[in-house]
Amino acid sequence: MDPISAVLERVLEEVRPLDAGEVANYIPQLATADPDQLALAVVGPRGRVRSVGDDRVQFTIQSISKPFVLALALEERGLDAVLDHVGAEPSGEPFNAISLEDITGRPVNPMVNAGAIATTSLIEGTDVDDRTGRIVATLSAFAGRSLWIDESVYASESATGDRNRALAHLLRSHGIFEGPVDDTVESYFRQCSVLVSVRDLAVMSATLAFGGVNPVTGARVVSETSARHVLSVMSSCGMYDFSGEWLLRVGVPAKSGVSGGLLAVAPSQFGVAAFSPRLDEHGNSVRASAVVRTLSESFGMHLLDTHEGLGAPGVHVQANQGGGLRVTLGGELGFAGTERVAAVLRDLVGSASAGTPVIVDARELGRVHPGALSALRAEFDDMPEGFQLTQ
Amino acid sequence: MDPISAVLERVLEEVRPLDAGEVANYIPQLATADPDQLALAVVGPRGRVRSVGDDRVQFTIQSISKPFVLALALEERGLDAVLDHVGAEPSGEPFNAISLEDITGRPVNPMVNAGAIATTSLIEGTDVDDRTGRIVATLSAFAGRSLWIDESVYASESATGDRNRALAHLLRSHGIFEGPVDDTVESYFRQCSVLVSVRDLAVMSATLAFGGVNPVTGARVVSETSARHVLSVMSSCGMYDFSGEWLLRVGVPAKSGVSGGLLAVAPSQFGVAAFSPRLDEHGNSVRASAVVRTLSESFGMHLLDTHEGLGAPGVHVQANQGGGLRVTLGGELGFAGTERVAAVLRDLVGSASAGTPVIVDARELGRVHPGALSALRAEFDDMPEGFQLTQ
Amino acid sequence: MDPISAVLERVLEEVRPLDAGEVANYIPQLATADPDQLALAVVGPRGRVRSVGDDRVQFTIQSISKPFVLALALEERGLDAVLDHVGAEPSGEPFNAISLEDITGRPVNPMVNAGAIATTSLIEGTDVDDRTGRIVATLSAFAGRSLWIDESVYASESATGDRNRALAHLLRSHGIFEGPVDDTVESYFRQCSVLVSVRDLAVMSATLAFGGVNPVTGARVVSETSARHVLSVMSSCGMYDFSGEWLLRVGVPAKSGVSGGLLAVAPSQFGVAAFSPRLDEHGNSVRASAVVRTLSESFGMHLLDTHEGLGAPGVHVQANQGGGLRVTLGGELGFAGTERVAAVLRDLVGSASAGTPVIVDARELGRVHPGALSALRAEFDDMPEGFQLTQ
Amino acid sequence: MDPISAVLERVLEEVRPLDAGEVANYIPQLATADPDQLALAVVGPRGRVRSVGDDRVQFTIQSISKPFVLALALEERGLDAVLDHVGAEPSGEPFNAISLEDITGRPVNPMVNAGAIATTSLIEGTDVDDRTGRIVATLSAFAGRSLWIDESVYASESATGDRNRALAHLLRSHGIFEGPVDDTVESYFRQCSVLVSVRDLAVMSATLAFGGVNPVTGARVVSETSARHVLSVMSSCGMYDFSGEWLLRVGVPAKSGVSGGLLAVAPSQFGVAAFSPRLDEHGNSVRASAVVRTLSESFGMHLLDTHEGLGAPGVHVQANQGGGLRVTLGGELGFAGTERVAAVLRDLVGSASAGTPVIVDARELGRVHPGALSALRAEFDDMPEGFQLTQ
Repeated sequence: MDPISAVLERVLEEVRPLDAGEVANYIPQLATADPDQLALAVVGPRGRVRSVGDDRVQFTIQSISKPFVLALALEERGLDAVLDHVGAEPSGEPFNAISLEDITGRPVNPMVNAGAIATTSLIEGTDVDDRTGRIVATLSAFAGRSLWIDESVYASESATGDRNRALAHLLRSHGIFEGPVDDTVESYFRQCSVLVSVRDLAVMSATLAFGGVNPVTGARVVSETSARHVLSVMSSCGMYDFSGEWLLRVGVPAKSGVSGGLLAVAPSQFGVAAFSPRLDEHGNSVRASAVVRTLSESFGMHLLDTHEGLGAPGVHVQANQGGGLRVTLGGELGFAGTERVAAVLRDLVGSASAGTPVIVDARELGRVHPGALSALRAEFDDMPEGFQLTQ
Repeated sequence: MDPISAVLERVLEEVRPLDAGEVANYIPQLATADPDQLALAVVGPRGRVRSVGDDRVQFTIQSISKPFVLALALEERGLDAVLDHVGAEPSGEPFNAISLEDITGRPVNPMVNAGAIATTSLIEGTDVDDRTGRIVATLSAFAGRSLWIDESVYASESATGDRNRALAHLLRSHGIFEGPVDDTVESYFRQCSVLVSVRDLAVMSATLAFGGVNPVTGARVVSETSARHVLSVMSSCGMYDFSGEWLLRVGVPAKSGVSGGLLAVAPSQFGVAAFSPRLDEHGNSVRASAVVRTLSESFGMHLLDTHEGLGAPGVHVQANQGGGLRVTLGGELGFAGTERVAAVLRDLVGSASAGTPVIVDARELGRVHPGALSALRAEFDDMPEGFQLTQ
Repeated sequence: MDPISAVLERVLEEVRPLDAGEVANYIPQLATADPDQLALAVVGPRGRVRSVGDDRVQFTIQSISKPFVLALALEERGLDAVLDHVGAEPSGEPFNAISLEDITGRPVNPMVNAGAIATTSLIEGTDVDDRTGRIVATLSAFAGRSLWIDESVYASESATGDRNRALAHLLRSHGIFEGPVDDTVESYFRQCSVLVSVRDLAVMSATLAFGGVNPVTGARVVSETSARHVLSVMSSCGMYDFSGEWLLRVGVPAKSGVSGGLLAVAPSQFGVAAFSPRLDEHGNSVRASAVVRTLSESFGMHLLDTHEGLGAPGVHVQANQGGGLRVTLGGELGFAGTERVAAVLRDLVGSASAGTPVIVDARELGRVHPGALSALRAEFDDMPEGFQLTQ
Repeated sequence: MDPISAVLERVLEEVRPLDAGEVANYIPQLATADPDQLALAVVGPRGRVRSVGDDRVQFTIQSISKPFVLALALEERGLDAVLDHVGAEPSGEPFNAISLEDITGRPVNPMVNAGAIATTSLIEGTDVDDRTGRIVATLSAFAGRSLWIDESVYASESATGDRNRALAHLLRSHGIFEGPVDDTVESYFRQCSVLVSVRDLAVMSATLAFGGVNPVTGARVVSETSARHVLSVMSSCGMYDFSGEWLLRVGVPAKSGVSGGLLAVAPSQFGVAAFSPRLDEHGNSVRASAVVRTLSESFGMHLLDTHEGLGAPGVHVQANQGGGLRVTLGGELGFAGTERVAAVLRDLVGSASAGTPVIVDARELGRVHPGALSALRAEFDDMPEGFQLTQ
């Protein structure tokens, strides 16, 4: 076992004794899950998947499909059109609450069922099969392999889906969508019935973590903007009526599903997924939540953690052959980084003899925020003659 | 004008034409504010305060006091004790909604009035003056100067504070606090009446951005953990019933006040504050919100942005005098960084001749997440003889 | 014109100038109603129908069907079984509010749409036609003539009935009913589309007023108990979120429909119906409400009015041929009446010479409440010898 | 024991075995009540008080004060002014729910605490003592004896009254009242602490039953209109969130209190009160509710019962000495009665020889509804010559 997997294994064993919670039973297929199953997977920037426990067990994705279908809707329609049909406010309410805005009937957010159904209704498609096809293709691209629908779970979802049908009829009564109710709800039931393993979910998570590019396949699945929008919504609404406390205590965008899956994202760092069927009173997996919480603490995943040098480029100062100095900037340049670069330059003003040519080479910079670059450029107005910025 | 201030000035002029919204009028002192006032301030990691516009105008802090009094409560009581008295869930409700949990009567979060009053009740103090003294001292430490109460605003808040008194009585009826109602609400009215400028707010914001250390005075005001907890709550609940959409579109922990102030935090990067009295229907300043939104877009403040090299240490490889190699790690080591370091080491295994001693010097690392370090150490089990980690 | 019709005509002209409100437009067929139509009908204990204004205009019964289908459900299932599926509490909410009890999902009362759908689901029937047949037969028996469905209104209700379908799915998701959703909602849409005139409604109302016996046809339609239960529910919930103020100001069990009909019941006295299409913000016809209110004031319809001699039988004292006295009781004997009879008897004890035989003949009494009769019988224990009660 | 008391005694023994429910414990004084106490009293039209069980036990009136203070407010201010400050809609919510209308802040009805506090604020008074004096005087007039406040219960109510103080502050924040909060809530706590026995409550009930005239003292306490308004509000809102089912199953205006009292009114017939401290989940006394329900069933108290001859006057036809006929009308003349009188007259037209003078003497009529009288007069236009109406 590789060293990182060993770390994951230790985390898994730490939470294994937790046996609180109940397996979901609203459809028979979920109720038959082995409650003791437990798995964890992590995918880093190079796309290597590490997984431990019952990492080959497949289960239906259920609500974890919601952020990915949202990503597809954002790609197809754009943010403003999506927000015309579904809000982005956490509601403090359970996943199956009705949760429509008073007058508009707009569901409060895409992570509650009503909002997810509204989101699914936005996906293009000539019929259920066509729409479902697009959705499954997107989920597969996020996972880096072809995913399949569990037809018996789908049949059961459809047969017992009165509450979701009710939500769909309410949405249509408010004009949130217009086509046949069945087209939308059957598509929704099918998207919930896609089979995944914890490894799939970790890759899907990592694709969000790295700005929409699947680190395993290298393919761009959605735009960086769409990925950011999805992570934002997951941050505020992903854990139902525990979302606020989750952000406080664990601090990662996450999404749980009733089959026991949980996916969490450490943006720019890695994707995580855990799986264990027993659920707490919010509908979140007890052990999967504990796994992610432990990881967050020991691996520094909290979104609101401070990070050294965030947005500050590496600064390398070399003597030039011609007697001048060459300052090479590398990495990311954010606003705070500008201030740090300016400080280095001012030090050089003080230490170098007057007139020494100083070339600041910004050509190696990666991500540069436009405001930061303006500020950096403006710094040169104050610099003595001889200081030049090369972009 | 320094170059960064010039950038800020341009942002200010961009939003100045916005004239929607209404000045708050629930107490006469607020209604007299000049609706055209507009100011912006930014404080970076070195504590330099840049401000433009009406940056010397003082106004009462109002609800922006809430996160800072929360920070004090967290310092005094710890997270669990605070959460016994006030939740951390966004409610999707307006700031003055009653917003108590059904059975416990616990206010849903510390950013709505009921929750803020519960938070204030947690602050130690033998009486109103003593408690207020502690609160004002904390606000002052965050701001880096002694702040004062506007006594006429306070008197007016107290005289018209029926709704807040109602909330306090409700809280006490649920046992959320036990002392005299007046002690708590008068302390609360006083904390809301502290006078600040946009520069003060920016310093307060920066103190949260840099893990509880005021970058102007260099003093630690609260622990890094408390600062993170406060930022988490601001992220999910800081902008009332616009918090979700704010996180989606702007992506920064923020807190607004009815006098027109708005404070936003780019963790590890800088603190921002803006001020303009006209409010939108959520009670957030129209132009201050626009200023922060513009800054977020051009300066890369969004929490869910991807950042290059987050948690990856700088890796510097040098030939040793003794023929071996020295690999120096600097900066922060997170989980994803471990993977990057391991990749460099594996490259060295391939390129260096067998048996070459390789010293990996981790003594220059700054923040190291424990899980990451375990994983890094474990990597050496796989390495050829000669690879050593120096901590 | 007969004198009572002349009185009704005056009432009609009094309210005719009212032109506030809007014709319902949620389906096109309702929107085409002539807003100026106005009609009134009254049916007394002998079944004579007096009507004035547009009394031959037919309109769909809409929500006024609810109390009559409730009556049928009560007949078929009994009160307790009905209350297992739908509550009897006013909600203070609009007619189309979701209004389900938190845990059970039981609709709050049979007069809101959710509750009416639950009620319809209780009616026996092998399919929609069978169930609808039973419902229309009951409505016809209440009206004293064969009623028909307006098929174009029905088709339109069905085509636009998303909200009601949503409610039905919610009910089924809570186990309030089990069969196909379509069977129930189509039956409901059909019952709402039955055509009536104001004269029909007045006869239906009178049938409730006289304990379930249609005073025109003389047929018993439902039991007295069912009629009383329906009137009780109409009293507390019949006028949506204006029910309380209606009971306060007008004081009669009533039910309104979105097509402009309004039916009101003066129990034991008469049935009233009025019709005018413009509705107020509660969904009640503006002019029909005003007509009933005026009638209630001038005709003494308020349920909480005091009535002289209520429950007190007529007492007729005659000298017997044999020298004794004969006391004949007629009418209704309630508790208060017992006290009045006892007072008369005590007077006789005082005035008649000792030993005079007194025969109290209770054989002519109509309605006798059992407690009252016990109390009356017990009075004879105290009476001097010679007093006898003949039942 | 008199025969009616014997009937009452039997009812009492029937419910005595019920031992469900809990004694209220929100203040210590209530918690000390003997849970086995049980009493019942009835007052009929002649003012005789019959009582059985623990009929001398005094307890604090608590919420049963609400309808009587409402009666006083209606007398002082009139219905419209009262409804400006408090609504008349049942809410389906518990007694201590906040229950304010969304925008106006008007409490939904005078029977929930918020509405009762608003009602108390309407009572004139220069200070707490003055206002309390007026209230206690009114309660005493309803009871027919001087009532007193239990000062220790009052002190305890005041000391623990946070929730009610909260409601009062909310009301004042909405402008529902303007004076000092303490003046209103202390008056309210005092009115709740008035000591009564079940006999007092029965007399108070009877005063409402007989149109505002105390049948024991013969004094008019409030107008018939005010009494009717109070009974209307009790009918729709008197039993908290059980009001609808109470009206359905029991059918009498009623009001319960947390100390175990329950008062019920059979309008025009009698007043009832029962007492037993154990409460159900709605806050209504278990055994007192059962007592009233049993009485209602056996004594015909249900408001929606049909009553023979309601509003039909007695008609007495005599041959005149002069060869004509004299028709004497006695009792009450309602609309339905007009129809009955007209039927008798038409019979006479058929049976008497043409031209026979018929004098209809209406001078003995008691209550005459104006519309009914118009209709009766108009009948004479159709009658043959010789028919005369003498008023």
